[in-house]
Amino acid sequence: MPCAFHIQTTAGPGRRGQLVTPHGTIETPVFMPVGTLATVKGIPQDLLEEIGPEIILSNTYHLYLRPGVDTVRKLGGLHGFMSWPRAVLTDSGGFQVFSLSELRKVKEEGVTFRSHLDGSSHFFSPESSMEAQIGLGADVIMAFDECTEHPADARRTRESMELTLRWTARSKKYFEDHKHDVPWKGLVQKDAQSDGAATQSLFGIVQGGMDLALRRESAERTIEIGFPGYAIGGLSVGEPRHLTREVVEATLQHLPADKPRYLMGVGTPEEIVEYAALGIDMMDCVLPTRAARHGLLFTSEGRISIKQARYAQDEAPLDPKCPCRVCQRYSRAYLRHLYAANEVLAQVLNTIHNLSFYLDTMRTVRQSISLGDVPRSPLAARQ
Amino acid sequence: MPCAFHIQTTAGPGRRGQLVTPHGTIETPVFMPVGTLATVKGIPQDLLEEIGPEIILSNTYHLYLRPGVDTVRKLGGLHGFMSWPRAVLTDSGGFQVFSLSELRKVKEEGVTFRSHLDGSSHFFSPESSMEAQIGLGADVIMAFDECTEHPADARRTRESMELTLRWTARSKKYFEDHKHDVPWKGLVQKDAQSDGAATQSLFGIVQGGMDLALRRESAERTIEIGFPGYAIGGLSVGEPRHLTREVVEATLQHLPADKPRYLMGVGTPEEIVEYAALGIDMMDCVLPTRAARHGLLFTSEGRISIKQARYAQDEAPLDPKCPCRVCQRYSRAYLRHLYAANEVLAQVLNTIHNLSFYLDTMRTVRQSISLGDVPRSPLAARQ
Repeated sequence: MPCAFHIQTTAGPGRRGQLVTPHGTIETPVFMPVGTLATVKGIPQDLLEEIGPEIILSNTYHLYLRPGVDTVRKLGGLHGFMSWPRAVLTDSGGFQVFSLSELRKVKEEGVTFRSHLDGSSHFFSPESSMEAQIGLGADVIMAFDECTEHPADARRTRESMELTLRWTARSKKYFEDHKHDVPWKGLVQKDAQSDGAATQSLFGIVQGGMDLALRRESAERTIEIGFPGYAIGGLSVGEPRHLTREVVEATLQHLPADKPRYLMGVGTPEEIVEYAALGIDMMDCVLPTRAARHGLLFTSEGRISIKQARYAQDEAPLDPKCPCRVCQRYSRAYLRHLYAANEVLAQVLNTIHNLSFYLDTMRTVRQSISLGDVPRSPLAARQ
Repeated sequence: MPCAFHIQTTAGPGRRGQLVTPHGTIETPVFMPVGTLATVKGIPQDLLEEIGPEIILSNTYHLYLRPGVDTVRKLGGLHGFMSWPRAVLTDSGGFQVFSLSELRKVKEEGVTFRSHLDGSSHFFSPESSMEAQIGLGADVIMAFDECTEHPADARRTRESMELTLRWTARSKKYFEDHKHDVPWKGLVQKDAQSDGAATQSLFGIVQGGMDLALRRESAERTIEIGFPGYAIGGLSVGEPRHLTREVVEATLQHLPADKPRYLMGVGTPEEIVEYAALGIDMMDCVLPTRAARHGLLFTSEGRISIKQARYAQDEAPLDPKCPCRVCQRYSRAYLRHLYAANEVLAQVLNTIHNLSFYLDTMRTVRQSISLGDVPRSPLAARQ
């Protein structure tokens, strides 16, 4: 049985719920940190547990290349391989291959692409993506889609959407035929509603570019194929922010209220609050981890670029309101020194803080919804 | 008052003791991890506390360049700056400047050198090294010496030794005149024997190249100047291993039994056991941390180069006998993947393990001495 989703409270279009997976229950709306290569860069798993994510995201394309699906499967899937007992979601590899614009070739059957590591040639199809994602053994896996580029004309957007729909149906068929091959088969899913053999959950992805009619059609036809959850893909591909929001709002109207809704690749601290308020249940983004590596830190008082000389002798914690182990122990002066000296500990500590900030933000969002309040960004309130 | 040293038991020439510093009591023989830039590379201080070193070493030359002594002093010295409540030792900068062979010029007054970072010109003297080390505020600081190169002829070795002796006397004079300027003045040292205002402890360094007579003379004349502890410097500069051991054994005979003896820059897991058995009380080396970054791991079963393909699907822990959090949680396959993918977590986890192995090794050494046994390397016993 796939994971169950229960909505507990709503505040306007925003909802607070629980997604029950074979590796734990996830409080939604949830932000999922990105651990591309089966590691949230620089963070030992026990520290990550303490920071608190109930689910993390890993990238099929990268893991397929290194260490290879076979190795991960033999070590018990991603949970066993990286020693992470909580839930995991994998993307389909479609978006990552899309990013290799010069190195890929799309046909009906699938996508031929060259590895960014060594230029070797590979082929991903809906079937091979499902095979890889079943071997990796994440709790939630994604249908293989084509991420439509932006801008794209009406004809190209429709053709791309139609291709994604055919690939979505093929993804579901392969998954249904092979879902019991997951590396942790035999695991029983504990849920208030039912105890049954746990399986992965395959989510469909809505495409349709920036065309609201196509988004509606894509949503309706994806729902017809039928999934336990739906993602909104093909955004954050270079379009202006107001357009992203417009497409998300329009698409959300056509998604079933009783299924989790996942907005892929979003966003800033302000955006994750905004989209949770609109009724998005799941989000992921490299921003908190990538920005940390570049010394950009999110705080309750706004963004801090820790490399600046003004922090060189600043004894204050990074964020006086933050309870994370970095803000409880170190000064801005020390963090600035580590960054300026290119010390690895800079990346470790900055990542711990930024992830703590994102997860605290989502905790506050969930509390707001529980109280019947529409979540608002504390940063937006200040501006 | 400087730190006190108490010997508790002996086994042959080996001794088990306690070094009482303003920031805690250190069980000896002790291995001191190196935290060059006020960070043991990649390890958050709370994880370092768990690994267990009671004292770490930092490098004056590097800290003088970045972030600068003034910044560290303003943040409360190294303890406050890096948020490390336990003891710290700083080197004098002499050895680091010695390593910049092309960029330095030695005169009676001191050494002019160029920064390895930006080529800017700087000057270190016994007085400026003491000033820097007092500002950094380590518990144990080192006299400014010249590390004699190897090989060196008899005349050069004597001249270098004489220069070090003059610099040693100048170091002591400056230190005695300024020792109350330490950033943590007012701290009271808790010791069974006495409660007094805590000060740093300045150790003298014995030089004399590979000439045993000069080593004796250097030891005797350094003792005449008078310090609460003595280091053996000028080794591990390219000489064969048997010669290092010969010089250490010969020099030890001329050092007072009731003062701590510090062998600088040593060594492998086998060497730290061997030198502890000879009566060395303190050692430091970049080997466990640097080797970790290159994927070379020390285990109870010997050395492991984790990059090797043979570990790609190895489910076993790195060292089945090791209680560290890396060996308790991760497989060799995962560690191999992290290293092969150049993930920062490889460095973090490898360093945690190697330091744990070194500190466990020294714990075993101290237990052996307590039982009256001469410590032997478990690795040597296997070979």
